[in-house]
Amino acid sequence: MLSEGIHFTSNCPPEDIGWKLAAVNLSDLAAMGARPLAALFGAGIGEGRDAGWATALARGLAACLDAHGCPLVGGDTIRQHGPTTLALTALGHLPPGSALGRCGASAGDDLWVSGTIGDAGLGLEVAQGRRPFDRRLLARYRRPVPRLALGGQLRGVATAAVDVSDGLLLDASRLAEASGLVAAIVEADIPLSEAARASGVAARDLATLGDDYELLFAAPASRRDEVLALGNVSRIGALHPWGDVSGPRTRVLLRDRDGRPIVIADLGHRHL
Amino acid sequence: MLSEGIHFTSNCPPEDIGWKLAAVNLSDLAAMGARPLAALFGAGIGEGRDAGWATALARGLAACLDAHGCPLVGGDTIRQHGPTTLALTALGHLPPGSALGRCGASAGDDLWVSGTIGDAGLGLEVAQGRRPFDRRLLARYRRPVPRLALGGQLRGVATAAVDVSDGLLLDASRLAEASGLVAAIVEADIPLSEAARASGVAARDLATLGDDYELLFAAPASRRDEVLALGNVSRIGALHPWGDVSGPRTRVLLRDRDGRPIVIADLGHRHL
Repeated sequence: MLSEGIHFTSNCPPEDIGWKLAAVNLSDLAAMGARPLAALFGAGIGEGRDAGWATALARGLAACLDAHGCPLVGGDTIRQHGPTTLALTALGHLPPGSALGRCGASAGDDLWVSGTIGDAGLGLEVAQGRRPFDRRLLARYRRPVPRLALGGQLRGVATAAVDVSDGLLLDASRLAEASGLVAAIVEADIPLSEAARASGVAARDLATLGDDYELLFAAPASRRDEVLALGNVSRIGALHPWGDVSGPRTRVLLRDRDGRPIVIADLGHRHL
Repeated sequence: MLSEGIHFTSNCPPEDIGWKLAAVNLSDLAAMGARPLAALFGAGIGEGRDAGWATALARGLAACLDAHGCPLVGGDTIRQHGPTTLALTALGHLPPGSALGRCGASAGDDLWVSGTIGDAGLGLEVAQGRRPFDRRLLARYRRPVPRLALGGQLRGVATAAVDVSDGLLLDASRLAEASGLVAAIVEADIPLSEAARASGVAARDLATLGDDYELLFAAPASRRDEVLALGNVSRIGALHPWGDVSGPRTRVLLRDRDGRPIVIADLGHRHL
């Protein structure tokens, strides 16, 4: 669900809202290794929104669903008081028993992430006028691309996976906790785009921003070459047993190249 | 989707809202002749609603889904500004090609309806304090029962079906229009409960009230005995060719016992 004033601002272009609604749901399917089967769309159109706005929203939704081969098969549209609420249900398909989940990683597994981290968070700052205009960063925020092909390839290879929606560190801590482990991440290995490097924001801070919609996953060290061959993935750390790590009791540890811990004040991401 | 202030009042008991959200979606499956497979629940919890309210809502939802063998398999819960928005996606199963729809009825088919008509509309008036308290009428409004068993039995027998959500006459006109026909209904054959008869409201007016969630369906006259054997169904009229009926061009005609037309000012039902 996406709600106006919570997950998107009132002045966000409706095409982009529609795209993002589809993309974030398809990203959940990608993290499970599923192929999109169908989607159902619930639109609670709020006050001050006209047919033109709703049509543009539907156009953006259709563009993203079409781009990923996902037919829209049902839903409902209502008028409501207050702001707009959007609900998408995405159905996926995968072989029985093959779904990837947050739990399932083992101690010693490598920790990987696709693409680059922090661009969407910087794009939000562009949208808010808090950072100079940058088309690419803004697109990463408003038009995320679900990693469906990669997700499908990870079935049978990865032991656990999540999509990075609330920040790399927070989502890594969730994967680690669900698997009963601790994630240890090397700051210098977090993949950054040129634009992110040029932003002057440290990787440790970019890793707390949300909306990346990259895949974060664990895989046995023995399968490192297979994972690398998938392309556009970076090994950022490893998973360790819970209780085997010195220091504060946390599910995610960020370290510098020499293994020294980096203190993280706040793992998390708050919407808008 | 159900929205606070549109589909339910702010003071409606949350258990009843949850029940009704599930029931109205399962009713759509019933009208297609489908068996419930799974449901996904999106809750946009609005301002002024606490965890106790949301828990009671979930309890009512679970009660209805459990009563009809429909597991809840996913969804999302968010906080939002303004009033509450609820979105349920119900998935059903039926043999390929066997789904009942609005179109498909033939001229000469009988028109049938299950249960009794108008009780829920009177129940709404009870809820609004515009009618003396009546537990049974209120329950018909707040706790509708989806006609899933009947819907399944109608596959292969009915030629078209809808659930009566916006009033018998309006939904009959929709079925007739989708089938390219005219529905002719005999007022005296509209099934009424004891309470509805005692209300003093005419059948023609009860047939314009919403929220019945009974099944309205067409079936060939040759299968009349089969339909009657299903029980709790009433034959209320027949379908005629479009253009074959004298009088104003409308998709639904209400008549008295002697075939004289009854003028209907407004077919429709507006929520709340």
